[in-house]
Amino acid sequence: ERAGVPEAILADGKTPAEVADLAATAIETTGRALVTRIGDETAAAVQERLAAAVPEATVRWDDRSHWLVATTPDFERPDLDAAVGVVTAGTSDAVPAGEAALVVREMGASVTRIDDVGVASLARTIDAVDRLRDQDVLIIAAGREGALPTVVAGLVDVPIIGLPVSTGYGHGGEGQAALSGMLQSCTALSVVNIDAGFTAGTQAGLIARQLDDAR
Amino acid sequence: ERAGVPEAILADGKTPAEVADLAATAIETTGRALVTRIGDETAAAVQERLAAAVPEATVRWDDRSHWLVATTPDFERPDLDAAVGVVTAGTSDAVPAGEAALVVREMGASVTRIDDVGVASLARTIDAVDRLRDQDVLIIAAGREGALPTVVAGLVDVPIIGLPVSTGYGHGGEGQAALSGMLQSCTALSVVNIDAGFTAGTQAGLIARQLDDAR
Amino acid sequence: ERAGVPEAILADGKTPAEVADLAATAIETTGRALVTRIGDETAAAVQERLAAAVPEATVRWDDRSHWLVATTPDFERPDLDAAVGVVTAGTSDAVPAGEAALVVREMGASVTRIDDVGVASLARTIDAVDRLRDQDVLIIAAGREGALPTVVAGLVDVPIIGLPVSTGYGHGGEGQAALSGMLQSCTALSVVNIDAGFTAGTQAGLIARQLDDAR
Amino acid sequence: ERAGVPEAILADGKTPAEVADLAATAIETTGRALVTRIGDETAAAVQERLAAAVPEATVRWDDRSHWLVATTPDFERPDLDAAVGVVTAGTSDAVPAGEAALVVREMGASVTRIDDVGVASLARTIDAVDRLRDQDVLIIAAGREGALPTVVAGLVDVPIIGLPVSTGYGHGGEGQAALSGMLQSCTALSVVNIDAGFTAGTQAGLIARQLDDAR
Amino acid sequence: ERAGVPEAILADGKTPAEVADLAATAIETTGRALVTRIGDETAAAVQERLAAAVPEATVRWDDRSHWLVATTPDFERPDLDAAVGVVTAGTSDAVPAGEAALVVREMGASVTRIDDVGVASLARTIDAVDRLRDQDVLIIAAGREGALPTVVAGLVDVPIIGLPVSTGYGHGGEGQAALSGMLQSCTALSVVNIDAGFTAGTQAGLIARQLDDAR
Amino acid sequence: ERAGVPEAILADGKTPAEVADLAATAIETTGRALVTRIGDETAAAVQERLAAAVPEATVRWDDRSHWLVATTPDFERPDLDAAVGVVTAGTSDAVPAGEAALVVREMGASVTRIDDVGVASLARTIDAVDRLRDQDVLIIAAGREGALPTVVAGLVDVPIIGLPVSTGYGHGGEGQAALSGMLQSCTALSVVNIDAGFTAGTQAGLIARQLDDAR
Amino acid sequence: ERAGVPEAILADGKTPAEVADLAATAIETTGRALVTRIGDETAAAVQERLAAAVPEATVRWDDRSHWLVATTPDFERPDLDAAVGVVTAGTSDAVPAGEAALVVREMGASVTRIDDVGVASLARTIDAVDRLRDQDVLIIAAGREGALPTVVAGLVDVPIIGLPVSTGYGHGGEGQAALSGMLQSCTALSVVNIDAGFTAGTQAGLIARQLDDAR
Amino acid sequence: ERAGVPEAILADGKTPAEVADLAATAIETTGRALVTRIGDETAAAVQERLAAAVPEATVRWDDRSHWLVATTPDFERPDLDAAVGVVTAGTSDAVPAGEAALVVREMGASVTRIDDVGVASLARTIDAVDRLRDQDVLIIAAGREGALPTVVAGLVDVPIIGLPVSTGYGHGGEGQAALSGMLQSCTALSVVNIDAGFTAGTQAGLIARQLDDAR
Ligand SMILES: Nc1ncnc2c1ncn2[C@@H]1O[C@H](COP(=O)(O)O)[C@@H](O)[C@H]1O
Ligand SMILES: Nc1ncnc2c1ncn2[C@@H]1O[C@H](COP(=O)(O)O)[C@@H](O)[C@H]1O
Ligand SMILES: Nc1ncnc2c1ncn2[C@@H]1O[C@H](COP(=O)(O)O)[C@@H](O)[C@H]1O
Ligand SMILES: Nc1ncnc2c1ncn2[C@@H]1O[C@H](COP(=O)(O)O)[C@@H](O)[C@H]1O
Ligand SMILES: [Mg+2]
Ligand SMILES: [Mg+2]
Ligand SMILES: [Mg+2]
Ligand SMILES: [Mg+2]
Ligand SMILES: [Mg+2]
Ligand SMILES: [Mg+2]
Ligand SMILES: [Mg+2]
Ligand SMILES: [Mg+2]
Repeated sequence: ERAGVPEAILADGKTPAEVADLAATAIETTGRALVTRIGDETAAAVQERLAAAVPEATVRWDDRSHWLVATTPDFERPDLDAAVGVVTAGTSDAVPAGEAALVVREMGASVTRIDDVGVASLARTIDAVDRLRDQDVLIIAAGREGALPTVVAGLVDVPIIGLPVSTGYGHGGEGQAALSGMLQSCTALSVVNIDAGFTAGTQAGLIARQLDDAR
Repeated sequence: ERAGVPEAILADGKTPAEVADLAATAIETTGRALVTRIGDETAAAVQERLAAAVPEATVRWDDRSHWLVATTPDFERPDLDAAVGVVTAGTSDAVPAGEAALVVREMGASVTRIDDVGVASLARTIDAVDRLRDQDVLIIAAGREGALPTVVAGLVDVPIIGLPVSTGYGHGGEGQAALSGMLQSCTALSVVNIDAGFTAGTQAGLIARQLDDAR
Repeated sequence: ERAGVPEAILADGKTPAEVADLAATAIETTGRALVTRIGDETAAAVQERLAAAVPEATVRWDDRSHWLVATTPDFERPDLDAAVGVVTAGTSDAVPAGEAALVVREMGASVTRIDDVGVASLARTIDAVDRLRDQDVLIIAAGREGALPTVVAGLVDVPIIGLPVSTGYGHGGEGQAALSGMLQSCTALSVVNIDAGFTAGTQAGLIARQLDDAR
Repeated sequence: ERAGVPEAILADGKTPAEVADLAATAIETTGRALVTRIGDETAAAVQERLAAAVPEATVRWDDRSHWLVATTPDFERPDLDAAVGVVTAGTSDAVPAGEAALVVREMGASVTRIDDVGVASLARTIDAVDRLRDQDVLIIAAGREGALPTVVAGLVDVPIIGLPVSTGYGHGGEGQAALSGMLQSCTALSVVNIDAGFTAGTQAGLIARQLDDAR
Repeated sequence: ERAGVPEAILADGKTPAEVADLAATAIETTGRALVTRIGDETAAAVQERLAAAVPEATVRWDDRSHWLVATTPDFERPDLDAAVGVVTAGTSDAVPAGEAALVVREMGASVTRIDDVGVASLARTIDAVDRLRDQDVLIIAAGREGALPTVVAGLVDVPIIGLPVSTGYGHGGEGQAALSGMLQSCTALSVVNIDAGFTAGTQAGLIARQLDDAR
Repeated sequence: ERAGVPEAILADGKTPAEVADLAATAIETTGRALVTRIGDETAAAVQERLAAAVPEATVRWDDRSHWLVATTPDFERPDLDAAVGVVTAGTSDAVPAGEAALVVREMGASVTRIDDVGVASLARTIDAVDRLRDQDVLIIAAGREGALPTVVAGLVDVPIIGLPVSTGYGHGGEGQAALSGMLQSCTALSVVNIDAGFTAGTQAGLIARQLDDAR
Repeated sequence: ERAGVPEAILADGKTPAEVADLAATAIETTGRALVTRIGDETAAAVQERLAAAVPEATVRWDDRSHWLVATTPDFERPDLDAAVGVVTAGTSDAVPAGEAALVVREMGASVTRIDDVGVASLARTIDAVDRLRDQDVLIIAAGREGALPTVVAGLVDVPIIGLPVSTGYGHGGEGQAALSGMLQSCTALSVVNIDAGFTAGTQAGLIARQLDDAR
Repeated sequence: ERAGVPEAILADGKTPAEVADLAATAIETTGRALVTRIGDETAAAVQERLAAAVPEATVRWDDRSHWLVATTPDFERPDLDAAVGVVTAGTSDAVPAGEAALVVREMGASVTRIDDVGVASLARTIDAVDRLRDQDVLIIAAGREGALPTVVAGLVDVPIIGLPVSTGYGHGGEGQAALSGMLQSCTALSVVNIDAGFTAGTQAGLIARQLDDAR
């Protein structure tokens, strides 16, 4: 009954062989395997295993956002009538934003990317307001001080999921300032963990499903 | 255009006179004043000021969840076709859960309270599944190790906002274990800060508005 | 030769008698005593001591920003040709902002207060841009997520000293999120410690002196 | 008189030569050498040394759980009448669980592995209840938010040793959320440090010895 | 079926009225109410409520260890054939040690107190070895650097539950050094949270039940 | 209108190709590209791209301070009548000090380096006082305990920007002690994040611009 | 054989009655009772008990440094040929410095106080060099950034024990910056915990005993 | 006048060329160069440089404790009449203990190594008491929970410098538990930072000089 939520395999902390086993099982039982945080060596192992076990599968691998998705030809991705905006402050936010966008798409919602609208050049943020307002839900990725979700929430009334990114060095680096800033925001954000694009995407996907049900 | 979001005044860190001023301004300009984290002394000051300035206002004060709402007779609360569940693990979670429920109601959604379903007696959690599934969105408040939102997310596919509560002592006390556990959850939660019932409520309210629009 | 820098006494961690002794010595040797973080009991002790020891002194006490300044009639405050803006995000920032403004004035620069321009209502921030641009230096006080200095730095090229304020609760509360966010800002800020209005004011005062020299 | 407790050598922070020396001494004096947290290079060094010094020894090396055990032919492992369950939430918990199981077995108790019963699919946890109840003591390994020992403790009355695992990233990552969650658990757990499979195993082994004495 | 584990009410974070309600319900349904971390005001409220609702109950209140136990005349405490030693390093450890001893006794095991054997005067520790060895399980409470459980574990082979106590000031104060030292111990300890006498006692009680079953 | 502030590209967390793209765009639109925290591989990629796209550009790369600046022949660097001192405590401070000096120069101010005047040999610090006093603003880089800015601020009345450096190991290592010491300084410093030479330089540059305007 | 080390009673975390008992026992068995961190209520309880139990004892109580010493008439304090300097940066350091000086005197060494030589007015530090050099050992108390021991160690070759003081607010406050700065010092200091005047004093006393033996 | 304190060069965070330059200067001006925390590559660079610049120098390099000392033939090491004990809990403490011993010897005191007397086998600790008592000062290195200095201080009255070692993993790992345990010790220790063998050695050397003066 949870068919809408992709069963993702988190590759971190598993051997290539273990990930390949889990992926083979996933595709054989559900028609899809979704692996996140996958490195080059593990991606090769998975591809090899799937080529042997499920030769008819289509495999997509994003070596920048570190995900891999494989589906059998007859797998039917859900199709939801809901629009999710995936927003980045700058170039460095691409990895978790990419992971989030992937999951939203796999859950069946449409994704609009709105990139490089960080607050250091506020005019670009403001220029994006109409596109931001057109979405049903926003995932906003930002590192360093992570101010973008707060600023956007002051401009639009769309529910926003803040996605802190592990950029920044020194005190509050590695995304810690962004996370605590989003948790302290004087606007209404909900938040996921640093770099947790998967979680942000799934949460947006679940909201999208409720909207699709309502429409 | 942000009429649906109540302009809340956070009483923490302000003098009673400052809060009373802000509340009087709020009710005069918007027909409603909503104050959170208000102590006894400040509540008295606000009530006195409002009695003088806006004698026709209705004032409700919850001295357990530390909020106060005042409205003029002609204030029209929005009315949204959306159901938010506010869930607690135990008695200690009542304060932020109460704040969250208040905000959701002020934003116009209906609220169902589902209380005392913490995982230490898992049978009660499981018994609540049907009521949990009936909601459009869930706010789940839990302190100590904060496992309840994770367990519920393993049982239902409703979007869940985890609300960590500042219970617990020693290492990870004051809600820190609950917060980090919800951020690390192997299920898909979004999270607000420790005791941030207001934020959880507003976020749920914004989702409720999208659902009301869709219906 | 450091006559321009007021010799301030930090009352925290000293007994009322100790503070009173230090204040009496300061006014007797320099014509001025400046005490920060002074509570009611200590302020009373200082006033009593000064009334006895230097009856001709003028004493000003700000029980909201917790400072006390006493000067002898012949004390000549410096007069600098430089303009410092002291900016707050909201009401809660008044205490350290007041302390900063005091120090700047005691060092002889002129102070413009620009209040309640926090980013949750971005229009007010943007409306303030002209006033912000007119200053030689800005001290910007903000608590919670502390985004205001970053947003202002994206709008004007005046040097900005970020002053994090000890508001906020839960993770990153007590000003910690604001401090780490300002340290991580993707714009160019320098920062002082949480609630360190005195330090921010002195630093702005030293810059004002350099500008006064140059003019 | 502490013959029942294996004298383990922690390889971390020692050179291969140092570990090999310590292992040779251990097997020569007690008939057994047990090394934990051993990497490939050190394992090779130890094997070479033991092959030279104690050629009749049997050496087992687990390159996944990073332990190595060598025994002389006449070494007699104790045999305890007690059953320890070693439980994992998911694949990533295998390393410390394997270390714990090893130590329990070397101390002479019997080990039952109960794997992949993490709370994200609660049905599997509940299905395992009978197997969990059959044990005298449980070691439960879990990473991320570490909720499994809490949930199990709500279902069975067997004493449980929580073993947090260093999975997870971002805030509370590297096992910190799991550790603090287990310490905050609203059920009765005792806990060992993150990844401290050896400690969990020895503690379970000591309880097993008391049970064996009692039987 | 969990009749052996007392249903304890943690008074922290609840109002006196809430605690009194919970205690009345507990005694009415199970014949016993056990409240921990109870302050004077709440203890009075509970006593008053119980006097009215269950006048035949016996109430014991320990205002040093902050617990209260009430039982009906016909309540039968279990009686286990197992010996638990509750050990303190010094006077400051009395509070959590008292809480632990209470729970062990309520679960039916016998308790031996072994007090003031802290390592600063090592001769006293060594003198206690025989008494320590006579126990089936040890709970060892220690604050500051918390070295006592480590030293005892080097002397006896009884399973030990370390109970860190919130003494100490400065860096590592409030029991943090004791907790981290016990988690890092080079001997085999399991640990509970700082001041978590209730958890230590329940864990020891569960082990005692297994021993009682075995005997 | 922010022409005076170089648009820097932070290479950390970007791929070589992304940095090269951003650098090419920067030089094409502004006549200058400034990259910080650039490693060898990325520097090679940028040089190659610029050689192809803007062959007439001059490229300077500092592989010790990890910056790269490229300018077109007709680029006109601003020229400010203001003197910034860049001071180091020891050899280890060279990297962020070099980054700071670069930015100050690119913003047009003159830079004087005052090196190796750390407080462990206080005579050298005192010998430097005249050179320190001659500057309009000081950037003072120091690692370990970071005492140098405090000591200098006790000697001269020039505004000082403290730049903590990520040296030191153990507790307070990686620049954390230096940062917190500068934030706690009993003198008037403003501070930037650990290793944030870019931020310190920009802040000094903005002050220099104000001074240049005033002169 | 450890007669030279006073058996001190730490009053923190003990009830007045417990402290009084321990003090009575100490004076009866050793002729002296030394209590540290004693508040007003406990001091009164101790004085009352000692007046009853050992009426001939002399009791000294320092309500600023929170210690109490009682001795019987025939108690002979040791007399060591060694000079310990107890140095403070400012007024706020008086409490732990007073505790340290007490312990040194009770151990029999002579104490020279060298006060208010903090580095913010470096001339006063330098003026004190001769007095500092005349000591055998120095205890240097400093709060905030805690730079004084580092600066002194750069001027004299006497062994220095750094005593961080719990002054300061915000990040690194409560003595944390001072502690980490002293631990990171690029000179050779040993350090005790924040406010641990007793520990600093005892350590200096033990060194004084070795010097007395050598002389 | 600080001839007794070796001018050490900390290699961490410097390039090989920088270290070689500093070493050449040191030996040319003082007859000795002492480098700590030196890796293989840097050691080679230093040796090459010294072979060219000061061919008559004697170079000793300890690749386990990561130090290098070079002296000219006519360099006269001081010779102090004082005995320093350098004590380790286990094999893993060898690196900082070796650094400490080196510095003590270079300062001219005699060094006795007392190794592997950690408290997990308390009998060995107690067996060492006589050797421990024979020293003028003790440096005691211990990782994990760092209990050894506390236990020894309960047995002997020699001044002890605790040297925490960066062993251990999980919570309190990397020497943090050892450091905080030593700071919290209920005995009288002074402490240096984690792995700061150089600091411990210099502090012991300064005490040794005072003793040599006294003898
Ligand atoms: N990149 C990711 N970040 C956070 N959670 C993830 C990620 N990828 C997968 N997950 C979650 O982690 C679970 C997989 O854990 P595992 O059983 O260890 O493979 C999935 O069911 C998801 O809920
Ligand atoms: N209890 C609360 N927790 C978190 N945020 C709040 C709370 N109450 C109000 N707020 C937010 O804080 C803002 C009020 O800040 P202030 O201007 O300081 O009163 C409101 O606009 C809300 O967005
Ligand atoms: N080394 C640096 N440290 C801190 N901030 C920097 C650094 N270099 C560039 N920046 C800032 O970070 C911004 C670049 O961020 P990005 O868009 O990620 O390249 C620039 O506009 C600068 O304000
Ligand atoms: N291993 C070490 N740990 C701590 N401090 C050291 C160490 N080696 C040298 N030092 C100190 O650091 C100073 C060298 O710093 P630097 O100028 O960066 O080489 C020396 O004067 C020593 O006081
Ligand atoms: Mg909004
Ligand atoms: Mg679900
Ligand atoms: Mg700007
Ligand atoms: Mg149970
Ligand atoms: Mg043992
Ligand atoms: Mg100055
Ligand atoms: Mg010195
Ligand atoms: Mg001793």
